[in-house]
Amino acid sequence: MDENQIVRRLRKRFGGSSAGLVCGIGDDAAVLRPRGSREYWAVTTDMLLEAVDFRRSWMTPAQLGHKSLAVNLSDLAAMGARPRFFTVALGLPPDITDKWIDAFYQGMIKLARRHRAVLIGGDLSRSPLGIQITITAIGINAISRPLYRSGGRPGDSLYVTGVLGQAAAGLALLLRGRTQGGNLPERRALKSHRTPTPRCAEGEWLAASGFVHCMMDLSDGLSMDLPRLCEASKVGAEINGEQLPIFKEARKWRCDPTELALHGGEDFELLFSVPAGKERDIETAYPSWFAPLHRIGRLRRGKGVVHIPRPGIDPQPLIPAGFDHFGQR
Amino acid sequence: MDENQIVRRLRKRFGGSSAGLVCGIGDDAAVLRPRGSREYWAVTTDMLLEAVDFRRSWMTPAQLGHKSLAVNLSDLAAMGARPRFFTVALGLPPDITDKWIDAFYQGMIKLARRHRAVLIGGDLSRSPLGIQITITAIGINAISRPLYRSGGRPGDSLYVTGVLGQAAAGLALLLRGRTQGGNLPERRALKSHRTPTPRCAEGEWLAASGFVHCMMDLSDGLSMDLPRLCEASKVGAEINGEQLPIFKEARKWRCDPTELALHGGEDFELLFSVPAGKERDIETAYPSWFAPLHRIGRLRRGKGVVHIPRPGIDPQPLIPAGFDHFGQR
Repeated sequence: MDENQIVRRLRKRFGGSSAGLVCGIGDDAAVLRPRGSREYWAVTTDMLLEAVDFRRSWMTPAQLGHKSLAVNLSDLAAMGARPRFFTVALGLPPDITDKWIDAFYQGMIKLARRHRAVLIGGDLSRSPLGIQITITAIGINAISRPLYRSGGRPGDSLYVTGVLGQAAAGLALLLRGRTQGGNLPERRALKSHRTPTPRCAEGEWLAASGFVHCMMDLSDGLSMDLPRLCEASKVGAEINGEQLPIFKEARKWRCDPTELALHGGEDFELLFSVPAGKERDIETAYPSWFAPLHRIGRLRRGKGVVHIPRPGIDPQPLIPAGFDHFGQR
Repeated sequence: MDENQIVRRLRKRFGGSSAGLVCGIGDDAAVLRPRGSREYWAVTTDMLLEAVDFRRSWMTPAQLGHKSLAVNLSDLAAMGARPRFFTVALGLPPDITDKWIDAFYQGMIKLARRHRAVLIGGDLSRSPLGIQITITAIGINAISRPLYRSGGRPGDSLYVTGVLGQAAAGLALLLRGRTQGGNLPERRALKSHRTPTPRCAEGEWLAASGFVHCMMDLSDGLSMDLPRLCEASKVGAEINGEQLPIFKEARKWRCDPTELALHGGEDFELLFSVPAGKERDIETAYPSWFAPLHRIGRLRRGKGVVHIPRPGIDPQPLIPAGFDHFGQR
């Protein structure tokens, strides 16, 4: 089974219902409703494993602390929830020093403070087998309902925030041993990979705007993640290659920016849909200081995701080639 | 730094305050208060690592699934919270089969259903380096306030539920390669180690009884855990050896039952204090079908924990010799 299959199976077999449970297994976060409260609580868990998700030589402990929390905050952003609390379970090999631990938490807490999220607990263990980090984050939708993957409808316009493929361009540098950026584009790409910015303010604004039908964050790459959104919303989608916000500078280190934008993981940008006819409204209202919006395609009836490289060229199926955490690749 | 030192340091440096946060780092679970709700929400995270916390040859996947959840539910029980929701982050080596995964979740869900707890999400990853399980559980105190480690006062009587050292007696068998119990005591000991029973009903009842000053669960052994309770309550304690509910049968496999009761980990029984003069009240009111109560000593002024092996013998300091997850032993 791949990751999608296991999640589907778990939801089907074990996804119980319960008072106070609004949304369980399968979205970016679960959504709970405390009794008597008007708030929605979003809960998400993400794990980073050494040798799978990172190498120690690729980033400082502070960067690793930042990234571990950022990937969780991004899941909250995808629900439109404001981060509030988090726990950290940490498995550490014996050669990790007290100084390392301090720097790790400092990097994490610096990001947490920016979002007013508070560390409330966790677990610590020696681990003979590499660093393991599991964070559970809790966020709150106080003024709006959460946004789910499932709200998309045929005809909706598809949007993303920011630039796609920039983190993958950074990863490409690291894989070639270029851990120090030699110029501005390289440093930007490395920064995207090491210390991604979760789009929390954007997500909260989008949820409150009333314009958005469905939303998720891009963690495994557009070609892996968009089909998940389509499956949840029971729609298909088409992507216009020329509208993708690609990271052109990656050409300088012989990467194809469009391939990175379609398949590269860990951008942690938001992907969402807006009903047809509301495009101008949201583009006008969207704050200028947020990560920029890009309309990249639309949802349509049926199944499957197609990619139109250039106008006039026939649509091509978009084959998932992003990161499957559980694949046998 | 050992685990206690790191936790102290994290609480001091990074333990922020926040609206809705009642209790942060350092107790068995964090306690939150959703706005507008009368409920308290307890949140706890616990991690089980292969080769540190278990060996694959020691237990079936279903037993491992049970135990991973049980250790978290026990933390909720220690707050008097009723389990409601949990997430599971799972790192699995490539040789783990789909059948294994199914059995693991089945063992976990069986225990979850008994407590009406619902799986709401998680994360999955291939892990080249052994099985890793991190569960975050959320429980609710709907009718009573949570119980903390910090409420103990000098003069309180100290109680535990159940038998102490039984899980450690099971571990002793496993360490000698005796994975099949040859008789009833061996099977009981192995069961305590593999599929511990979290004392959720007991914890909820104790919190609601109004008799209890402070509570925690015994995960690392009495000699490790009682000093934590004492530190939080700013008291000392004395333990009466003759009153300890020891697992006598462990003598049959050449273990010292008193040593196991004092230092053995993973019993997941509750440790709590009752104000002087209320002992008979609580012992009378406590339901007979719960895990039995045992008064094992008392809290006293000052610092430190002493052990009185037999009446008339001078008190001896109780040296922590339980399991430090982070020690350099």
